[in-house]
Amino acid sequence: MTYMQTITSRDNSQVKNYIQLASSRKERAAQGQFVTEGCKLTREAYDAGCVPATLFVTKSAAEKYSQELEEIFLSAQNIYEISDSVSQKMTQTVTPQGVFGIFHMLDKERQDVKINDNGRYLLLSSLQDPGNIGTILRTAAALGIDGIFLSSDCPDIYSPKVLRCTMGGVFKLPVTVSLDLRQLISRLKNAGITVYAAALTDDAVSLKDVCLGSGCAVVIGNEGNGIRGDVLAECSRALIIPMRPDSESLNAAMAAGIIMWEMTK
Amino acid sequence: MTYMQTITSRDNSQVKNYIQLASSRKERAAQGQFVTEGCKLTREAYDAGCVPATLFVTKSAAEKYSQELEEIFLSAQNIYEISDSVSQKMTQTVTPQGVFGIFHMLDKERQDVKINDNGRYLLLSSLQDPGNIGTILRTAAALGIDGIFLSSDCPDIYSPKVLRCTMGGVFKLPVTVSLDLRQLISRLKNAGITVYAAALTDDAVSLKDVCLGSGCAVVIGNEGNGIRGDVLAECSRALIIPMRPDSESLNAAMAAGIIMWEMTK
Repeated sequence: MTYMQTITSRDNSQVKNYIQLASSRKERAAQGQFVTEGCKLTREAYDAGCVPATLFVTKSAAEKYSQELEEIFLSAQNIYEISDSVSQKMTQTVTPQGVFGIFHMLDKERQDVKINDNGRYLLLSSLQDPGNIGTILRTAAALGIDGIFLSSDCPDIYSPKVLRCTMGGVFKLPVTVSLDLRQLISRLKNAGITVYAAALTDDAVSLKDVCLGSGCAVVIGNEGNGIRGDVLAECSRALIIPMRPDSESLNAAMAAGIIMWEMTK
Repeated sequence: MTYMQTITSRDNSQVKNYIQLASSRKERAAQGQFVTEGCKLTREAYDAGCVPATLFVTKSAAEKYSQELEEIFLSAQNIYEISDSVSQKMTQTVTPQGVFGIFHMLDKERQDVKINDNGRYLLLSSLQDPGNIGTILRTAAALGIDGIFLSSDCPDIYSPKVLRCTMGGVFKLPVTVSLDLRQLISRLKNAGITVYAAALTDDAVSLKDVCLGSGCAVVIGNEGNGIRGDVLAECSRALIIPMRPDSESLNAAMAAGIIMWEMTK
């Protein structure tokens, strides 16, 4: 491999650019790029077809992960060797592996959710916890859901925290950020898909009494406030997971996971 | 209410005792006490029947939460007003509410899991992430599982991180720490209960093809290493959640949640 340069300054412009991409959704959107940390996630992004723009590795990481990173070394546009001090500056963990990537996002065409009348979809409406988004994407990828739609006020799927929790699942799953969930729900219904709202309403049907199969979608709402009234009104029907009356509600990711499990049966 | 004393020193012995109980499992076991932070969890512990030994509140929290904490003020053995600086010392959050409790653990007799031949149980074998333990306990309480057994090397259910994730679920559920899971599995089988191991073995049955109803138990293994060989060998049968072949496995708490959902049907 050929290094462009060895970076030892924590104020280097490439390092600053990495940190900006890691911390700013706006910057990621403007550049069409996102960052990965760690050998595993960097490899997942590459395997999913994301084109590596820049790879930063410490000397010891380049030796330790030479096999896993070999192809990325060959195809990355820029490769920098970084000092341990620079690695400490870039990391979001306590003990960094010393592997950092900047990737181009997958192009819209490949990644966008296609709507089929026998598809199974999940819609995330105004969720706020990146860990929940990540866990939901990981579970959806594992269970083989056909696509996830997120309202634009959900955490960015390319944020480092979401990527960490998805374990690469985000790359294996069609995901679309929707500017207008109501319009999307209407589109899904017109395509013959039943759109359920996971919501505790008087006329909600129990998940034990409904058959979620092909041609269905479920909307999951905000952790604290549930689904916004106007989005709820657009859904075909409300759906609840029956629970012990004296108990706390399920965590949003857990509720979504149980519902997706039912969708894949 | 009558305050025993106002504490303004971060080196006060009561404050030190609280911090020790928060950080040391050994200390909690020795004293038979655990700590709560925040109005909600403190209230949950009280409502579950745990006897409050000590309550620490800042002046502003005492006013703000006077209604929620009224009964605890009446029954706590010691009540201290603490300064904001002491609250900052005690907290595990960025913006503390200023409410801290020390409670006596529920007595063994009330809390222990009773084995019935039509019960539904979950066994946690060497899990390591407190967040997973907490999420599993919260889900088990919501879905109405009859009891959870944890191997003694799982995180302490009374650790602050587990308690935060359970959202009080731990108090609503019979939970037993088991010194020997193999012996327990044998006991369950003798009581007529089928004990499944959530494990990827050649002869594992798919969760889609098995009916988990009353009289069943499932063992969940460590996040990285799965179920220990000798524990697995003791189980009646292995069980898998069918997944897309190219995907990461499910998170341990999510897998446990989906399995518990099937158990309650």
